[in-house]
Amino acid sequence: MSILVVGSVAFDNITTPAGRAENVLGGSATYFSLAASYFTKVRVVAVVGDDFTEKEESVFRARGVDISGIVRESGKSFFWSGEYGDNVNEAKSLDTQLGVFAHFNPQIPPKFKDSEYVFLANIDPQLQINVRRQMNGARFVGGDTMNYWINGSRPQLEEMLKGVHALLINDTEAKMLADDTSLARAAAKILKMGPKALVIKHGEYGSTVFFGDDAFGIGRRHPFRAPTLPLETVIDPTGAGDTFAGGFMGYIASRGELTRDVFKRAMFYGGVMGSFTVEAFGTERLQKLTREEIDERYNTFRELTHIE
Amino acid sequence: MSILVVGSVAFDNITTPAGRAENVLGGSATYFSLAASYFTKVRVVAVVGDDFTEKEESVFRARGVDISGIVRESGKSFFWSGEYGDNVNEAKSLDTQLGVFAHFNPQIPPKFKDSEYVFLANIDPQLQINVRRQMNGARFVGGDTMNYWINGSRPQLEEMLKGVHALLINDTEAKMLADDTSLARAAAKILKMGPKALVIKHGEYGSTVFFGDDAFGIGRRHPFRAPTLPLETVIDPTGAGDTFAGGFMGYIASRGELTRDVFKRAMFYGGVMGSFTVEAFGTERLQKLTREEIDERYNTFRELTHIE
Repeated sequence: MSILVVGSVAFDNITTPAGRAENVLGGSATYFSLAASYFTKVRVVAVVGDDFTEKEESVFRARGVDISGIVRESGKSFFWSGEYGDNVNEAKSLDTQLGVFAHFNPQIPPKFKDSEYVFLANIDPQLQINVRRQMNGARFVGGDTMNYWINGSRPQLEEMLKGVHALLINDTEAKMLADDTSLARAAAKILKMGPKALVIKHGEYGSTVFFGDDAFGIGRRHPFRAPTLPLETVIDPTGAGDTFAGGFMGYIASRGELTRDVFKRAMFYGGVMGSFTVEAFGTERLQKLTREEIDERYNTFRELTHIE
Repeated sequence: MSILVVGSVAFDNITTPAGRAENVLGGSATYFSLAASYFTKVRVVAVVGDDFTEKEESVFRARGVDISGIVRESGKSFFWSGEYGDNVNEAKSLDTQLGVFAHFNPQIPPKFKDSEYVFLANIDPQLQINVRRQMNGARFVGGDTMNYWINGSRPQLEEMLKGVHALLINDTEAKMLADDTSLARAAAKILKMGPKALVIKHGEYGSTVFFGDDAFGIGRRHPFRAPTLPLETVIDPTGAGDTFAGGFMGYIASRGELTRDVFKRAMFYGGVMGSFTVEAFGTERLQKLTREEIDERYNTFRELTHIE
């Protein structure tokens, strides 16, 4: 089944302990759609400037991603410059230029409205609400957010949370959103805010999904935790979270049913895709994977934590 | 098979966000032996003062632990006072009084020398070396250490590491010991220092075991990661690491063979025992478990991360 993602398509300057990359294709919708493209058909809604050329288009086209919903405006695309120190979980933002993204007001093309799976990448929660309203027939809506909106747009964020089936955030965001230092308690509080499933990403430790009482007919059950492979070398962590979301949502959309087993495997696929992304700068590694490589790593991750 | 543990038996004053407990039985050898007692016969070598009475003895005796190796000296037992804030992974030490522990020079009673499994709890690495020499027929030796020794007794610690089959430490200690910010790289470096297996405890995220090239005939294989259950309430984290070690080593000793599957289940049992300890102050929860409760939680942990 097709999945629709609404988010940013951007250019990034990235410095990590492993080196530096300039003006590479980035943005939440980019990482998400490339990752999800290995599982299902992907449609993107975003806005770009004059600097988005045939070269960037071809990255999406090569993966069969439908970019007819990417609007071109006069000006520059979203630009981000960031630096990572030894703690690869934390980027220092050096520069952010919104460019044409400043006036982003996503309109879903009529031909995308039949998308049963939707991902609201990390943008202004008011825009996420607007997209959700345009996609009110969606079967499964995932969403992301960040500290900036948790602190600065609380009412809109709470409204947005009522409209997502699964929220995907990291430990820090979960604790901040729930105002609780215990991850398990924070999860319980967030599930009362709307989402039926809460996926908390723990960076190199993997991720945990918590389920609400009425989650997809599978009910409130024990959480499920998926590990990641301990990596000796992380080249560039940029986009790992969006890539996780792409693997997670893409796998779910490809199955067409929401069972506990589908959720479990989706958690593993999220971690698998994220682990590829960090092996190279930008989307380089994500552009040229094969489903065989993905499934091989899936099996490695499974073995990492499997007991009979 | 019997397991021998050499470490501290102490009294603790503990303050956590959940409350306060005074003068409760503690110490690394105490937590370890109570946890291991659910899996195998345990022998303790430690030193205590006049304050160690029939009341404390009965805690060990009720679990069938052989405490004939606990030496009594005139004076006070090791005393620790600590406080936990919202970050349950980090205790603030308020007071430490070594008491009779200051002159601890462990002598292994002849009748304990046939112990095939040995755990060198967190004490001065020079004492760990001395114990290791007295137990040179041991089949499987586990060890623990901490920042204090990593920084202050490096040569002795490196000597100690050559004598242990498995080292059990946490993330911070592993990174400090290897002087590397990547956990996976740190693990590779530490395995070159001597241990055939390195168990890194990640607190609420679980634990990972890394294997060296010649590990127990199972060879260098992918690491194995065991999760822990996300807990809403942590009453008192004191002793969780020693309890993990007790579950891990106790299970291995109970099996009598070192296979990858035994290691995997030992990692789960370590996490399971640790998760019980934090549910109450001191050793309260550890004193009154049943093997049925333990196996029930083992199954919950397994389900937490199991995919077909």
